Amino acid sequence: MNRFQLFDQIQRKNSYLCVGLDTDLEKIPQHLLSEKDPVFEFNKQIIDATIDASVAYKPNLAFYEALGTKGWESLQKTLEYIPKDIFTIADAKRGDIGNTSSLYAKAFFENMNFDSVTVAPYMGEDSVKPFLKFKNKWVILLAHTSNMGAADFQLIESKANGRRLYEEVMLRAQTWGSPDQLMFVVGATQADKIESIRQLAPENFFLVPGVGAQGGDLEQVSKFGMNKQCGLLVNSARAIIYASGEKDFAQAAKREAERVRDEMKIYLDKYL
Amino acid sequence: MNRFQLFDQIQRKNSYLCVGLDTDLEKIPQHLLSEKDPVFEFNKQIIDATIDASVAYKPNLAFYEALGTKGWESLQKTLEYIPKDIFTIADAKRGDIGNTSSLYAKAFFENMNFDSVTVAPYMGEDSVKPFLKFKNKWVILLAHTSNMGAADFQLIESKANGRRLYEEVMLRAQTWGSPDQLMFVVGATQADKIESIRQLAPENFFLVPGVGAQGGDLEQVSKFGMNKQCGLLVNSARAIIYASGEKDFAQAAKREAERVRDEMKIYLDKYL
Repeated sequence: MNRFQLFDQIQRKNSYLCVGLDTDLEKIPQHLLSEKDPVFEFNKQIIDATIDASVAYKPNLAFYEALGTKGWESLQKTLEYIPKDIFTIADAKRGDIGNTSSLYAKAFFENMNFDSVTVAPYMGEDSVKPFLKFKNKWVILLAHTSNMGAADFQLIESKANGRRLYEEVMLRAQTWGSPDQLMFVVGATQADKIESIRQLAPENFFLVPGVGAQGGDLEQVSKFGMNKQCGLLVNSARAIIYASGEKDFAQAAKREAERVRDEMKIYLDKYL
Repeated sequence: MNRFQLFDQIQRKNSYLCVGLDTDLEKIPQHLLSEKDPVFEFNKQIIDATIDASVAYKPNLAFYEALGTKGWESLQKTLEYIPKDIFTIADAKRGDIGNTSSLYAKAFFENMNFDSVTVAPYMGEDSVKPFLKFKNKWVILLAHTSNMGAADFQLIESKANGRRLYEEVMLRAQTWGSPDQLMFVVGATQADKIESIRQLAPENFFLVPGVGAQGGDLEQVSKFGMNKQCGLLVNSARAIIYASGEKDFAQAAKREAERVRDEMKIYLDKYL
């Protein structure tokens, strides 16, 4: 999917919501456990319930890998179930040297047909570039994450140029790929910084986790983070997919996704 | 496996060789492709051929993920085939926030029974610590890698304390876990720096890729990198597993692994 198609979806749905498919057998409603593939069954019902209010789905690979080959099957079926006009994110946080990164890229972009994959920047240019060789596929590079440990290394200031590590990552990465193939992960818990982070990368989409369960502020993020093509995908996982742990989980997810979408519509009208 | 068991293996075998199982269907001998599980068959024969000369095996997950669920099956069978007194490394370079890292840890340490997993430090303490909660399991944290792009971020010097990023990673991480559960990835292409890198972490094992195909110098690495318990696992993949592309691939791998082991024996006698 290209940038214009993504923006088109956002405008048509009045939403920049990404639903995180962090599907955990211990948290899904008990009645699904008798299904042949409970993870896929859960995802399918969540997708059906939220698709009118969301523009992207993001399975975090850890939840699927923890289930071994069965998990990979559930993931593959989930990907096949998501309509092609919806943006898909393999939240894998991969990063390895050149030829190995190419294999990861192949796994996610070709075998599974994801639109994008999250990538960790620590190993530098040759670990990221192989992912950028695929047309209309995206790298979503970790920049300033939403967790506590983000402060450990991402905020280190460089002696040479005074930039913090995440700033250096964002500036350097823009020399590797265009805003048509490169997004950044920017945690909503950094809402107070998002205005300055936007200045570092005016054109790129940001994938913003941490709104909801982690306490980020959606209006703040939207007001200071939006660009002319919205430029935001705001992820919510637990707050939507586990809105209810009972048989009404899909309706509850729908209500919560639509509540977020309605809020997003206000910000799109106000700030876009 | 604990540190003493690992050192015991090294002494008994006169080797600190780790064989990288970067098994690629396009590179393995053609006659194996008619096997039911060519990847496992190749690994099995490589393991049989090299086990007397090596103390560890390291499958890089990318090669297996690129094959989908079949690849995970080959990987699982490979792990089950490796004897329990051999150290195993999931070269996965994972790293995510807390609860998600716990799931990756579960996937590698419990489901697959790997002894260790490589982890990327970018997201900081709470992305690494979940892996450190498993007894006699190891985190191998990326510090100074062997690829070109290592220079992009790992060498950035901190304004606050003058330390380079990889130095900060190594020092900070030692406050999270002991040398009984924490190793570092230090590329052999940094052989000229390995003496100073050793001073940063006197007790920890280093996993050293880049000897052989990537041009690192084994004597240099051994002379300046060894500590009292050897403290080195030197990885070689392509030079061993693809020593021959013909039917004699296993014998060729054996010869190459034994050649490296014989060289390592000299350095163990000389520098340990």
